[in-house]
Amino acid sequence: MIYFDNSATTKPYKEVLDSFITVSSEYFGNPSSLNALGGQAEKLMIKAREQVANLLSVKQSEIVFTSGGTESNNLAIKGAAFMNKNKGRHLITTSIEHASVRKAMEQLEQEGFEVTYLPVDSDGRIQIEDLKKVIRKDTILISVMHVNNEVGTIQPIQEIGECLKKYPHILFHVDAVQAIGKVPFSLHGNRVDLCSFSGHKFHGLKGTGVLYVRESVRLSPLLAGGGQEQKLRSGTENVAGAVSLSKALRMTLIEGKNGIENLKRIREILRKGISELEEIQIHTPIDHSAPHILNFSIKGIRSEVLIHALEEKGIYVSTTSACSSKKKSPSATLLAMGVPDEMAESAIRISLSYQNTENEAVAAIAAIKEASEHLRKVMN
Amino acid sequence: MIYFDNSATTKPYKEVLDSFITVSSEYFGNPSSLNALGGQAEKLMIKAREQVANLLSVKQSEIVFTSGGTESNNLAIKGAAFMNKNKGRHLITTSIEHASVRKAMEQLEQEGFEVTYLPVDSDGRIQIEDLKKVIRKDTILISVMHVNNEVGTIQPIQEIGECLKKYPHILFHVDAVQAIGKVPFSLHGNRVDLCSFSGHKFHGLKGTGVLYVRESVRLSPLLAGGGQEQKLRSGTENVAGAVSLSKALRMTLIEGKNGIENLKRIREILRKGISELEEIQIHTPIDHSAPHILNFSIKGIRSEVLIHALEEKGIYVSTTSACSSKKKSPSATLLAMGVPDEMAESAIRISLSYQNTENEAVAAIAAIKEASEHLRKVMN
Repeated sequence: MIYFDNSATTKPYKEVLDSFITVSSEYFGNPSSLNALGGQAEKLMIKAREQVANLLSVKQSEIVFTSGGTESNNLAIKGAAFMNKNKGRHLITTSIEHASVRKAMEQLEQEGFEVTYLPVDSDGRIQIEDLKKVIRKDTILISVMHVNNEVGTIQPIQEIGECLKKYPHILFHVDAVQAIGKVPFSLHGNRVDLCSFSGHKFHGLKGTGVLYVRESVRLSPLLAGGGQEQKLRSGTENVAGAVSLSKALRMTLIEGKNGIENLKRIREILRKGISELEEIQIHTPIDHSAPHILNFSIKGIRSEVLIHALEEKGIYVSTTSACSSKKKSPSATLLAMGVPDEMAESAIRISLSYQNTENEAVAAIAAIKEASEHLRKVMN
Repeated sequence: MIYFDNSATTKPYKEVLDSFITVSSEYFGNPSSLNALGGQAEKLMIKAREQVANLLSVKQSEIVFTSGGTESNNLAIKGAAFMNKNKGRHLITTSIEHASVRKAMEQLEQEGFEVTYLPVDSDGRIQIEDLKKVIRKDTILISVMHVNNEVGTIQPIQEIGECLKKYPHILFHVDAVQAIGKVPFSLHGNRVDLCSFSGHKFHGLKGTGVLYVRESVRLSPLLAGGGQEQKLRSGTENVAGAVSLSKALRMTLIEGKNGIENLKRIREILRKGISELEEIQIHTPIDHSAPHILNFSIKGIRSEVLIHALEEKGIYVSTTSACSSKKKSPSATLLAMGVPDEMAESAIRISLSYQNTENEAVAAIAAIKEASEHLRKVMN
């Protein structure tokens, strides 16, 4: 099996599963219980929070464990909007965000907020000048993803942060779900107020996530209740999930130290090999792109047809984002980049992890070549 | 170890952990991915949903998997309120709900909704007549817990449902987190529109839950995004979590078939034994109470003191609800029942599971007697 769908989800590390089981079976107390079993569980939560905070170079009190990237994004955006609605009701985001940002923004539009969607260029990047033009006195939040989940484009997060230093009252949220472990970036010293992460995108477990919330930032919680997670996210802590996430994050950041160069090599093999095929358009830009994503279209061959042809050869890839793949409409990201409908409907996303190899890339190119030639013959 | 804190959290069944690991390691695809790995994961989700729906005697499309009871309660209440705010802005609940209901209601009060909190009698029960008096033309939602998490009182859910048949436009939410598997109740044939469940309360895993949403009911999602869970709860599905929850629910309902009578026997041993101690007040009513909870106070001995004395003897109990135990304020539920402050500050909750035995009850009574006599001596 060649698993090239790591931006949809990753295979959990064995060590991650092991620690999940150990915690769930041996330290199953409720961290909020005053008895000793509760105390043990609470200590594990503190340790997991400490480790994640250290890995992200932030304070422990700034780590909020959530159920995943979608919750982190919704909590950041809606939590900030509702908390600051008396200061203003204008929000800024881009036209190529993940559905969990876009739909959260749409909900806020229904609640009386106004949202500006920044355009992107043909590489899928926003322009700082465009951002500067749309900032208003009543702007309270800007949400920009670090790495686009479909094409891998890296947004100029640092420059946006610089630009926002003039506007200390505007909160800056970054969806770093696809970036963490793949694109070096530090929360320390950058002007980011809120930052989302998802465990299962870096070999952790589904149902686990983190929202970084800068110390001074207040949010209206989505999940109100017992006051867990600094009152920002109530509900009995998923202790085993938090421990497993901290382990996955540590392991993936260690792997990344040497792995990023390797990813780049594999991706370049893929880029070169695929670009030599007939009637190809590669959507992932050469500059400003994460090392693990390559998005391309083969003219006339619809995404799902090629996906199924490749899966018969044991190669697993995706079309656009997993979350949008069943909607049967072409990718909004590709359309925003100016890709014609016909090509967007043929888009294939290869997404790598540190487990992938150069040999897999070579095999995949051959398989894509063979499958596309076969499909062309069948269709003609 | 005698674990008597099952209303805070339960030890996961071994089979639950086994299926979590199998799914996480072998079927790790994203259900939304179009490739075959995604398809396998999607099939597991369908099967888990089917099993939960069958066990609850409802339709598959009415099952929404969530991250737990707190999320289920928040989604039900805020989702219903925001969706129906143009029909009315009046909500009704009780004065003894779990924090995740109470705090959600308080958030809605800040958003312009009006909430009526029904009083309870000395048994912790609401009166149907009180409810009838406060229903208004602009009432859109009534939320009542089935079993109180602190004292175990069963609310008259069926009678409330009967009463609400005259008000078809009012949604009825039931927090069944403490009831499921312990107090027989069918969603089929009862007028309940929304019903919350939490996996880790019935030997499933933390971070898993269900919200039952009657077919015709529309909610504004808390987590917007990719449109998973019938668009009511976006985010990559925690496939292993859903499978593990369906297994835990099946096992706990099977255990309940013979286990409920056994629970009642154990609880009666505890009630009798503890009532014979000096200066005791038992808060859990004899009638209309779930079989697994016994709440009592020993005058003059503060909850946390007795909890720690008992944990030294290997017996784990709680004070009030886990979620509120660290607030150091006496239980709002007990105060609403008319328990004096001094006694409320001494409240201890014993909560059983089907794994507990009569011998454990006998041992616990002896330990409580010994500890309380010792503490009294020390304090005098």
